[in-house]
Amino acid sequence: MLLWRYKNSLLCLRTFIRQTAVAGVYGGQTESQSKPYTPRRAVMYVPGNDQKKIQKVTSLDLDCAVLDCEDGVAANKKEEARSTIRRALDECDFGLTECVVRVNSVTSGLMEDDLGEVLGAKRMPDTLMLPKVERPQDIDMFTKRLKEVLQGRQLETRPFLITYVESAMGLMNLRDVFKKTIDLQLKEQLYVLDGVVFGSDDFCADIGATRTADAKELLYARQKIVTCAKAFKLQAIDMVHIDLKDLEGIERQSLEGARMGFTGKQVIHPSHVPIVQRAFSPTQEQVAWAAELVEAFSKHTESGKGAFTFHGKMIDMPSVLQAKNILQLSANIGPTQG
Amino acid sequence: MLLWRYKNSLLCLRTFIRQTAVAGVYGGQTESQSKPYTPRRAVMYVPGNDQKKIQKVTSLDLDCAVLDCEDGVAANKKEEARSTIRRALDECDFGLTECVVRVNSVTSGLMEDDLGEVLGAKRMPDTLMLPKVERPQDIDMFTKRLKEVLQGRQLETRPFLITYVESAMGLMNLRDVFKKTIDLQLKEQLYVLDGVVFGSDDFCADIGATRTADAKELLYARQKIVTCAKAFKLQAIDMVHIDLKDLEGIERQSLEGARMGFTGKQVIHPSHVPIVQRAFSPTQEQVAWAAELVEAFSKHTESGKGAFTFHGKMIDMPSVLQAKNILQLSANIGPTQG
Amino acid sequence: MLLWRYKNSLLCLRTFIRQTAVAGVYGGQTESQSKPYTPRRAVMYVPGNDQKKIQKVTSLDLDCAVLDCEDGVAANKKEEARSTIRRALDECDFGLTECVVRVNSVTSGLMEDDLGEVLGAKRMPDTLMLPKVERPQDIDMFTKRLKEVLQGRQLETRPFLITYVESAMGLMNLRDVFKKTIDLQLKEQLYVLDGVVFGSDDFCADIGATRTADAKELLYARQKIVTCAKAFKLQAIDMVHIDLKDLEGIERQSLEGARMGFTGKQVIHPSHVPIVQRAFSPTQEQVAWAAELVEAFSKHTESGKGAFTFHGKMIDMPSVLQAKNILQLSANIGPTQG
Repeated sequence: MLLWRYKNSLLCLRTFIRQTAVAGVYGGQTESQSKPYTPRRAVMYVPGNDQKKIQKVTSLDLDCAVLDCEDGVAANKKEEARSTIRRALDECDFGLTECVVRVNSVTSGLMEDDLGEVLGAKRMPDTLMLPKVERPQDIDMFTKRLKEVLQGRQLETRPFLITYVESAMGLMNLRDVFKKTIDLQLKEQLYVLDGVVFGSDDFCADIGATRTADAKELLYARQKIVTCAKAFKLQAIDMVHIDLKDLEGIERQSLEGARMGFTGKQVIHPSHVPIVQRAFSPTQEQVAWAAELVEAFSKHTESGKGAFTFHGKMIDMPSVLQAKNILQLSANIGPTQG
Repeated sequence: MLLWRYKNSLLCLRTFIRQTAVAGVYGGQTESQSKPYTPRRAVMYVPGNDQKKIQKVTSLDLDCAVLDCEDGVAANKKEEARSTIRRALDECDFGLTECVVRVNSVTSGLMEDDLGEVLGAKRMPDTLMLPKVERPQDIDMFTKRLKEVLQGRQLETRPFLITYVESAMGLMNLRDVFKKTIDLQLKEQLYVLDGVVFGSDDFCADIGATRTADAKELLYARQKIVTCAKAFKLQAIDMVHIDLKDLEGIERQSLEGARMGFTGKQVIHPSHVPIVQRAFSPTQEQVAWAAELVEAFSKHTESGKGAFTFHGKMIDMPSVLQAKNILQLSANIGPTQG
Repeated sequence: MLLWRYKNSLLCLRTFIRQTAVAGVYGGQTESQSKPYTPRRAVMYVPGNDQKKIQKVTSLDLDCAVLDCEDGVAANKKEEARSTIRRALDECDFGLTECVVRVNSVTSGLMEDDLGEVLGAKRMPDTLMLPKVERPQDIDMFTKRLKEVLQGRQLETRPFLITYVESAMGLMNLRDVFKKTIDLQLKEQLYVLDGVVFGSDDFCADIGATRTADAKELLYARQKIVTCAKAFKLQAIDMVHIDLKDLEGIERQSLEGARMGFTGKQVIHPSHVPIVQRAFSPTQEQVAWAAELVEAFSKHTESGKGAFTFHGKMIDMPSVLQAKNILQLSANIGPTQG
């Protein structure tokens, strides 16, 4: 019960912070970002039409649960998925777990009804995921439809938006897609772009590649995605591990992804959640460094003197933001870790 | 003899399919492509001035023979190469082997005469290869010259065009080069862009890199080329293996290239052809998957019901196209495999 | 004494060559470059406020010494660094060692004073280094400030300019940054862009990556930097090795960097200089090839006959330039090697 209250207060904090202004993150404009850091170390999919699994996911100490309308749902179950998700949004308590809805892609012909039905719930999902983004125009169409659906609705908070790279075209156009999305975000104020997911299996099919254990064939794609994401201050969610029973491999690949700069990983089985979340957690050294830096920065701000130095070196704002993120992540995940 | 007829009928099929419309493959336009799949698992060079080797190449069960005007021909043999290739086009029977001519680069000062002389043959080459493309303007100049040479000629089929990446500039500009080529393809209707070749040795010289056995120094270049090629639905032909006597290494590198998404590999010795072609052939599992998928899609199209699902998952058109490519490749290479 | 004269004559040669015209290196324009090749195999930093270390660096047989105003200098020592560097420029004899000044970044608020004070010296630094470049606009601001500072001064030679990639944004925008820089170089005639440095540690912090021994997490960044640099005919300076005591590792990573196409490496301890410089030196085979090629080209130019061939193959100008660079590098480093 105590834990529960703690979780809720953090949830409120998260919501509160998200209200604050998010300014342009490229083009030379000054950044006055104060986006909260929502941990998405493990991102787990649940078929939107499976009420039982949705219920179960709320008990997993999972960062990010994705109620899926897309590939996890058979074509003749799409309507059932939409209505089940709509009910779950209003009736389930996800606690600290982020509640995400993945709609179908812009070109599927299904996205319009996904948005129309799912956003009929009283509670907005924390985050919307848009798969198979290939071109800036896809974001145009998504935004247009979202605007129609939200017409006349007062948003307490704007949901986060997370897009997918799942094709060669999507990877090639990633920078342009992000630019377009942030332009529309500033113009329409309907969402806050917060991350990108690497849909590795569809990507492999698209380029005709074969997944191998060390994923050498995906190195360019993974590192380009991290680079583009971080250039726009976005999270980057790594691929699914192919061999579900290979727990050691999952840990190895998670740690490797974290070392490359990914902030989390897709997961399709509950048993992988703790392994993956541990791999993407900051180490004790990182937390100590961050705490010291943030305290020094706070003192410096009070004193109001010139440039900020830490251990004799000038510190720029991205480092301070990075330190704050680590602390927020560390605080946020504290109660959920053994 | 029976085999021969079979080969010829496939050849006609290939020609027939190529006539069909090829629409824009980027920029959000609907794709109505029905390009045939011409296998180019092994792409072997023959000096254009060596009549004997040209004759021999037709007996190799080789996918793609390149009659070379460029680096394989000494500067004082260029004219001899042009006239020899012109005669070969009209007199040699290449059977199922694709007959390609590689002209000299736009900036060599030789391309104009290459095109003028070689395209004086009654038979058009199946494909033209343009090496050392660096910028969109190179495609402009090539297209302008090709238009002059083909002025007044009624083309039964448009030849394929395949370009090369052989420098840092060419790699950096690859996306822009493809866009420009497809624009000019739609405007002038002189060729059908179908692939790109990685000229790894010139590339290494240009960036000052040294080839190593595992080719780590080329990973970025290779994977960027695959990504750009596949974004435009083009074939990607991998580098030559450096050690000609290392047959095991050739097989290993071929398999690696195939796993990365390359569709074929350059070859400079006949003994490598079967090794390379085997490595770039679809496996039995892939063929079985493709056959099942295409049959299911065909049934679905007859029934006319909603979205197409296969094993409970929605299937998009790229997957169907991919499956068809595998079957076409499998059928096409069937008679040539032991 | 004799050696000293030799060094000075080379220095004059270097200065002389740099005067010659440098035309556009992209956009299809004819290149009429005759930039000299200034070796920067080892690039070593010295805190600008440390007069003793500056004095010592002139005795190291080092290619490139960087007198630092930036990260190597604490915030409250910036003014001391500027005045110390200014004096050193006029009073120290660097011999064959290139004398570089690294100013603070455009967004630091310190660059203006760095340039104002340091360029008050009678002797211009050979080269200016601009760290943390993220966008073309950064080059705009740098150039504007440099123009103000140099107003009314007659430059004997334009200094070289070397920029840094130290963030995801900087890597993503690298091509645009180079284009902008070369545009401004042609317009303002204030500097000659000559290279780029990979600031790997800041880059890792920015993308949230962790440095590992084999640097797999940096492969995309390193190879993209080499590609962009070489596309614009620039030098590419590789990352610092993380473990200062691991001399074997430094050699291994230097050799790997050289094989990837890097032309040099950052160094932070004098004991690493000879190891790194050896790794980035041309081999005897390369020197022999280059000498033979340049001689053949010279004979060919005298004879005035058609295309230039070497061992039966047509040779283009980049190869000749590459060979000349090797010879120049070899000659330049000759006296400094054991």
